Amino acid sequence: MKTIAIYHNKGGVGKTTIAINLAASLQKQGHKILLIDLDSQANSTFATGLMKFLFVEDDDLRDRNVSHVIESGDYDFIPDVVRKTDGFNHPEIDVIPSHINLIQKQSKLNQVASYKTRLVTKLKRVEEDYDIVIIDTPPSRDIYTEIALYAADYLIIPSDLKPFANQGLPTVLEFISQIDEFRALIGKNNLEILGILPSKISTNSKFLNYVFPKQKESLLNSHNLPIMNSIIFERTVLSQCTNQTITMGDLEIPDPKSVLEFAPDSPAAMEFVQLTEEVLEKLGK
Amino acid sequence: MKTIAIYHNKGGVGKTTIAINLAASLQKQGHKILLIDLDSQANSTFATGLMKFLFVEDDDLRDRNVSHVIESGDYDFIPDVVRKTDGFNHPEIDVIPSHINLIQKQSKLNQVASYKTRLVTKLKRVEEDYDIVIIDTPPSRDIYTEIALYAADYLIIPSDLKPFANQGLPTVLEFISQIDEFRALIGKNNLEILGILPSKISTNSKFLNYVFPKQKESLLNSHNLPIMNSIIFERTVLSQCTNQTITMGDLEIPDPKSVLEFAPDSPAAMEFVQLTEEVLEKLGK
Repeated sequence: MKTIAIYHNKGGVGKTTIAINLAASLQKQGHKILLIDLDSQANSTFATGLMKFLFVEDDDLRDRNVSHVIESGDYDFIPDVVRKTDGFNHPEIDVIPSHINLIQKQSKLNQVASYKTRLVTKLKRVEEDYDIVIIDTPPSRDIYTEIALYAADYLIIPSDLKPFANQGLPTVLEFISQIDEFRALIGKNNLEILGILPSKISTNSKFLNYVFPKQKESLLNSHNLPIMNSIIFERTVLSQCTNQTITMGDLEIPDPKSVLEFAPDSPAAMEFVQLTEEVLEKLGK
Repeated sequence: MKTIAIYHNKGGVGKTTIAINLAASLQKQGHKILLIDLDSQANSTFATGLMKFLFVEDDDLRDRNVSHVIESGDYDFIPDVVRKTDGFNHPEIDVIPSHINLIQKQSKLNQVASYKTRLVTKLKRVEEDYDIVIIDTPPSRDIYTEIALYAADYLIIPSDLKPFANQGLPTVLEFISQIDEFRALIGKNNLEILGILPSKISTNSKFLNYVFPKQKESLLNSHNLPIMNSIIFERTVLSQCTNQTITMGDLEIPDPKSVLEFAPDSPAAMEFVQLTEEVLEKLGK
C-alpha cells in the first residue's frame, strides 16, 4: 500500500479536483483506492457525493468521519468509518469523509501528541485492503496537514505556477523538513515529493506559449523541486461534474461525478488518465 | 469611522465577493472606504485588481502589505501601505493588500501579544480619513482572524445556510465570546453581529420555495442570531466580473471589476445596493 498526500499551502490550486479524480481514475484501472479527506472544509467529501443532505438534521457524517479515526483508541477503526461513494464513479471509491466539526476539535487534538500519529498506525492495519491511499489536505499548516504528512509516503504539490503559489513553496519545504525530522523518529523515510503538478493551467495559446514556460522556468530557478510531466488544465467540465444534481420530489440533491464518469472522452479525462500513468510509474506499480 | 469584519469559519460561502462588492457599492454612494485583506490566500487583493502581475519578479505586494501593518511599530503606517484599486470600481477604493507570506509570518506574530492589537491602534490614526472599513478574513481561527475581530466594531457572517455552514456557527460564537473577553480589557464594546447574511443562494424556484425557508428556520431554531434581510444570490455575473482580463502584448492580465462597475443593471448589482442600504441603516448612517 502506497499513500499519497495532495498538499500546497496556497488554496484554490485544484487540490480537491486532483485528489478525487486521481482516485477515480486509479479505481477505474482496477486499483483498490482509499480517499481520506483531512480538510475541515470537506470539499472532497462533497465532491465525491457523500454530502447528499440539505438540512442539518439529515447530516449523517457528524458521528462518523475522519476526526473519529484520529480520536478513537481502537486501532481497527478504519473499516467502521469508511463509506462507498454513491454514484460518483464506477467502480465506487472508499472514502473517509471530513466534517466542519474538525475546526472545533483542533485545539483538543493539539494537546496530545499521539493523535498526530494515529492515522499512521491505523493505515498499517488496512495495508492488505488498499493499493493506494490518497489524502486531501487543508491549504494551511494545521494539525490535520501534519497528520496527513506523517501518514503519507509520497507528496504531490498542485500549483497554478502563479507568483503566490510559487512564493508559498519555501514555507511548504520548511514544513516538510520539520515533518521529516519527526518521521525519522517514528522509523519512516523522508516524505518523497513526486513533484509540483501544474494545475488550473489556462488553455489559452498565448499563455501556453509565453507565460507558462516562463513561470515553469522561474519555479525551476528558485526551488530544487521536480515538476511532473502531467498538466491539469483549467476546464469547465471539471466544475460541471462536481455541480451535477438530481431532482427528488421538491429537492435538488447534489449528485457529483468524477470527470472519468461524467465525460470519459473529454480532454480533462485524458489528462487525468495521463496523470494516473505518471503516478503509477513513479510509485513503481 | 465604523469597522465591519466579514467572517465565517466555513469557507466558500462568499466572504470575498461580499467584502469587495459591499466596499464598491459604499464607495459609489460617496462613502470613504478602506478595504483590508487579512486572509493569506489574498482573494480580496486579487479580486480588486491589485495582483496584475504574472511572474514572481513583478510582485509589488511582497514588501508592502497587511503583514507590515501588523509588524511595524510605526503608528502612522496605514497611509504608506494603502493602495488604490486600478480599474476595479469608480471611484476606486483604498485597499490594504494581503500576501501568501502571511502564512510564513504566522508563528512569529503569535509570539507577541501586541501584534494582535496593532491594527486597532493604527485604525484610530486614520479615523478622519475613512467612513467605513471592511475587513475580509480567513475561513479559520488563526491570528489574522483574531486581529480582524479586535479591530472591528461590527460583524457580518455570510452563510449559504447549508448544514456545514450552520454547524460551524457554534465554533464562531465560542470564538466571538473569547474575543469579547479581551475586547473588554482594551476598552472596546462587544463585537456587534449585524447578522447572518444569506449568500450564494440558488435562484432555483423550487429551492427558494421549499429548501431555503426550511434552512432559515433550522438556523433560527438552533442559534440566537439575527438573519439579515438582504440576500446575495448565486449568480454567474459575480464570478465573471472577477475573471475579467485585458490583453497586453503577449500577456493576458487580470482586470477584475466590481459587479456595480461591470453590470450595474444586473440583479446581482441591485442585491448589493440593497445590502448597502441595510448595512448603512444598521450602522445608523
